Amino acid sequence: MHEPDRTDPAALPRTVGELGEDAALARILPRLRPADAAILGPGDDAAVVAAADGRFVVTTDLMVQGPDFRLAWSTPFELGWKAAATNLTDVAAMGARPTALVVAIAAPPSLDASVLEGIADGLREGLSALAPGAGVVGGDLTASAVLTIAVTAFGDLEGRSPVTRSGARPGDVVAHAGARGDAARGLALLFGEATDAAGEPDAAAAEALRARHPELVAAQLAPSPPVAAGVAAAIGGATAMLDVSDGLARDARRIAQASGVGIDFTAAALGPDVRLALAGGEDHGLLATFPAGTALPEPFERIGIVTDAAGRLFVDGVAIDSAGWDPYSGWDGRSG
Amino acid sequence: MHEPDRTDPAALPRTVGELGEDAALARILPRLRPADAAILGPGDDAAVVAAADGRFVVTTDLMVQGPDFRLAWSTPFELGWKAAATNLTDVAAMGARPTALVVAIAAPPSLDASVLEGIADGLREGLSALAPGAGVVGGDLTASAVLTIAVTAFGDLEGRSPVTRSGARPGDVVAHAGARGDAARGLALLFGEATDAAGEPDAAAAEALRARHPELVAAQLAPSPPVAAGVAAAIGGATAMLDVSDGLARDARRIAQASGVGIDFTAAALGPDVRLALAGGEDHGLLATFPAGTALPEPFERIGIVTDAAGRLFVDGVAIDSAGWDPYSGWDGRSG
Repeated sequence: MHEPDRTDPAALPRTVGELGEDAALARILPRLRPADAAILGPGDDAAVVAAADGRFVVTTDLMVQGPDFRLAWSTPFELGWKAAATNLTDVAAMGARPTALVVAIAAPPSLDASVLEGIADGLREGLSALAPGAGVVGGDLTASAVLTIAVTAFGDLEGRSPVTRSGARPGDVVAHAGARGDAARGLALLFGEATDAAGEPDAAAAEALRARHPELVAAQLAPSPPVAAGVAAAIGGATAMLDVSDGLARDARRIAQASGVGIDFTAAALGPDVRLALAGGEDHGLLATFPAGTALPEPFERIGIVTDAAGRLFVDGVAIDSAGWDPYSGWDGRSG
Repeated sequence: MHEPDRTDPAALPRTVGELGEDAALARILPRLRPADAAILGPGDDAAVVAAADGRFVVTTDLMVQGPDFRLAWSTPFELGWKAAATNLTDVAAMGARPTALVVAIAAPPSLDASVLEGIADGLREGLSALAPGAGVVGGDLTASAVLTIAVTAFGDLEGRSPVTRSGARPGDVVAHAGARGDAARGLALLFGEATDAAGEPDAAAAEALRARHPELVAAQLAPSPPVAAGVAAAIGGATAMLDVSDGLARDARRIAQASGVGIDFTAAALGPDVRLALAGGEDHGLLATFPAGTALPEPFERIGIVTDAAGRLFVDGVAIDSAGWDPYSGWDGRSG
């Protein structure tokens, strides 16, 4: 085997394949902050995490190059940030405080190791911003033709009951915390203005778009969902709650079906573009119901009312269909 | 949209893409058995799992089409079984009893939904055989060009301390439970006898090979590691333990380095092919150290002794190098 010249920085191993699994992991782990809840962190066959009240909340989510992200648009930092944010919101939607993540990455051997470092930085900063005290307690690194990030996130219910989708009751107030439609607007801008003549994602055009619409591009590529609002909702008496990942309408129907109720949105509360607010996916806000008269915890806003029309959705009393993001209807098969 | 004729079975949706995420999940979930530890199972943003002693063990692992499996060789059932088995062994290697899994699958839209059903069946039966009472508590399904299975597994230490890699002490007995080299022999047979003229995996040849060497093919494609031996080792006083996934030598060196000790294997105890026993990966046996004089719990066998030669490996007193499986050195870039 050819031994590279260690005195020339350009000759140092740079791709994941050149480094191998152990050396690549050695570049990632120091960039991550330990979780407060870690009893035993990365480095053994498994980690050990505290579950103070004798239970833990767990959710898992895959992000795949192509259907879920494009390397021409997302920086590695944004990929790590978004992987943390989307999973933290699922934990928050149960009314739990996020405590820890495990992160498994499958990466092409040709991938520059700096991409993994950027993902690690994004995970660390996303956790720090959205769920201080939570950290990465373990992971896996393997090879794949397609960059894939699998995150499993944990949370602490702190003695409370989980807030499920099935507790909404007629007369409850429907409330929402977070952006409505911004992630979808960002994605539409990227598809409309950050592709080349062949329709392929274009990095330079994305960079220019970022300068013109920083908030909307960030809402899509590195969202900052209201994670702390999940615990606040649970303490504040929420009867049902979920993470709005597939669009307000599609996710509201999940509460309506699980709870056997109807949900009637107030158009004036949804913002200037009602259709976008209802259909746009990936905002990762929290949709919750509260008993009438509850003082809504910040930053929840009242956007409708629970009715007895089981499984049905309305806007100002007029029935609507739900629509939103399905990974199999929204992807054209390109790898990104 | 064209509405298929529901009276003709051949016209029913068959691929994951035709079904969409919700309908595909509805085919998978009924095939899984609830976990005894599930307080809240699949169907909400997150699951809630019991952690009776206030802690939980967690490990995560990705299986990717190409580097980790080939669809021409593995049945979907075997993929599910192996995904369960490899993660259960990591939990067992901490001395914990496996309680639950979450499973995220990324699948091409063109994949027949029966493949997902087969994976679910293999997960269920693998759990039932290797860790009765454990079950799948949640998951995710998304699209990818490459079939990818991400499992995160949980375990209960039942009040015990975790058995890490760092507790081995000079004079301890080195013991092993499980197969030594069978998975590697199975893989060598598959590469040698189950490929076509172009070197591509061939399903018919694999089927014929299965008939000739059922045990060795099963050791590679659907291993049955000694999961229950992990708890037995912990109760029996193991000072260090790990899952042998990358070959006995490479994994023994991990104990040697973490514990600051040497490991001297006894050649006669390793079986007829010492090199294969030391280098072959994916057996998923348990390598553990016990204080001298310990009655080894079944099915552990004594295979060596811990010495004070920090970080070094020996066979009958002669120093050796470690070698084993690295996902980035063992894969040729084909998708399988």
